[in-house]
Amino acid sequence: MKISSLKNDKVKYLRSLYQKKYRRQEDKFVLEGVRIIEEALQEQVGLETIFYSDYLLRNKRGQELLDELEDSQIELIKLTDDLLQQVADTVSPQGILAIVKKVNYDQQILSGSNRLLLIVDRVQDPGNLGTIIRTADAAGVDGVITTKGTVSLYNQKTIRATMGSLFRVPILREDNLDKLIEDLKDEQIRLIVADLAGEDYHFNVDYNNSTAIIVGNEGVGPREELLAAADKKIKIPLAGKAESLNVAMATGIIIYEAVRQRLG
Amino acid sequence: MKISSLKNDKVKYLRSLYQKKYRRQEDKFVLEGVRIIEEALQEQVGLETIFYSDYLLRNKRGQELLDELEDSQIELIKLTDDLLQQVADTVSPQGILAIVKKVNYDQQILSGSNRLLLIVDRVQDPGNLGTIIRTADAAGVDGVITTKGTVSLYNQKTIRATMGSLFRVPILREDNLDKLIEDLKDEQIRLIVADLAGEDYHFNVDYNNSTAIIVGNEGVGPREELLAAADKKIKIPLAGKAESLNVAMATGIIIYEAVRQRLG
Repeated sequence: MKISSLKNDKVKYLRSLYQKKYRRQEDKFVLEGVRIIEEALQEQVGLETIFYSDYLLRNKRGQELLDELEDSQIELIKLTDDLLQQVADTVSPQGILAIVKKVNYDQQILSGSNRLLLIVDRVQDPGNLGTIIRTADAAGVDGVITTKGTVSLYNQKTIRATMGSLFRVPILREDNLDKLIEDLKDEQIRLIVADLAGEDYHFNVDYNNSTAIIVGNEGVGPREELLAAADKKIKIPLAGKAESLNVAMATGIIIYEAVRQRLG
Repeated sequence: MKISSLKNDKVKYLRSLYQKKYRRQEDKFVLEGVRIIEEALQEQVGLETIFYSDYLLRNKRGQELLDELEDSQIELIKLTDDLLQQVADTVSPQGILAIVKKVNYDQQILSGSNRLLLIVDRVQDPGNLGTIIRTADAAGVDGVITTKGTVSLYNQKTIRATMGSLFRVPILREDNLDKLIEDLKDEQIRLIVADLAGEDYHFNVDYNNSTAIIVGNEGVGPREELLAAADKKIKIPLAGKAESLNVAMATGIIIYEAVRQRLG
């Protein structure tokens, strides 16, 4: 039996999870497309319900994914192609959507020796946030903390840009900036804030002890409170007339300088 | 008088420049939108003809740009909103298009002491190429060389992603790979090739003398010939299960390691 109506209860529930409010309330989110759902399976993420349509069976990879899902304990619900397309956010959901349980990390990610953390303050472009998380994963960062005003991690564009890294990096959201700064200070984590008006080049500071690298909004940079709390304000050297780097690029360059110092 | 027909000769000529073949033949290309045309004016790029429509006059910034263009020697042609929209590639060309003369750099960019060059081999995503050029500009690279199989620099998506840096970085296209390698060797430029199977981490090689950093295609990396000609094959350390970095990100991280060594 295929479900074809938006009024079906399961479909209504799925649709509600496209809104931030319900994602928070239910602690769940939606994945779209073959590749990211393959990644979720591989990383043993809590897949709760799969919605698929005949479109998924058009190619071997989709067929294989469905076979694997049928062998699991995950609930499978078949929709018509039209309905699945209508619910999905992306233009080509490839005939598959999944409801996933969020993994909730806590303040624990701040504890431990030689932490390398990344704080993302009010970054608004989902592609930038996704690329930052992908790069943090590659660099082996211990955790990423996003603040109020940062785009949702569970936006389809963000999810896609992470290339699966959202399942591998501990990510925490902390809306209370004062509390976050206090907690970081309590854990004796050095705060290194990227700022166009920074006093040192990013490669002239020491990242060897517990460190949080802080990057801010694409247009205006990190908030005053973060600049005020900074142990160091750093900048990346810019030649000629270039005004700035993309925020994800800047973040990657700084994180990898920390990696260089730690491995070197 | 406003031109409203696709059959107008000036409009036909403009349209031809959306094809690579005619761009090469005429040595010209098209810019779309207020911001990039402002940048072109500021960088004294050879703006030849401006096509605009009433849409441009809807806001102050567009109005000011038109005022500035009217004070210049540049030919101005008014189109109907519909026609301009029809010709343009981007969804919102903001009522302005420009025909621009290409700047043709030659092999000279290989000569000189302590060159820092970037070779981009078969990168296919315009956003990646644009971001690479923006980052090369910020880092003060002496020149970028693109090879056959690399996406067009004059694609609107590439142009947009450069954020104006295409007017500031010397960029050369060299379709003959063997010749390029020979020329680089003749100039005693060290070839440092980024490769997932590289033997050294990117921060363990020396970029202080004339160096070309070579990055390749998103999926398969640089071509065999480039790997064979490499003085060093380098990789960026990847932690955990991350398979790779985005090619633009990887390029930025390596270029900035060279900058660090040169400034440090």
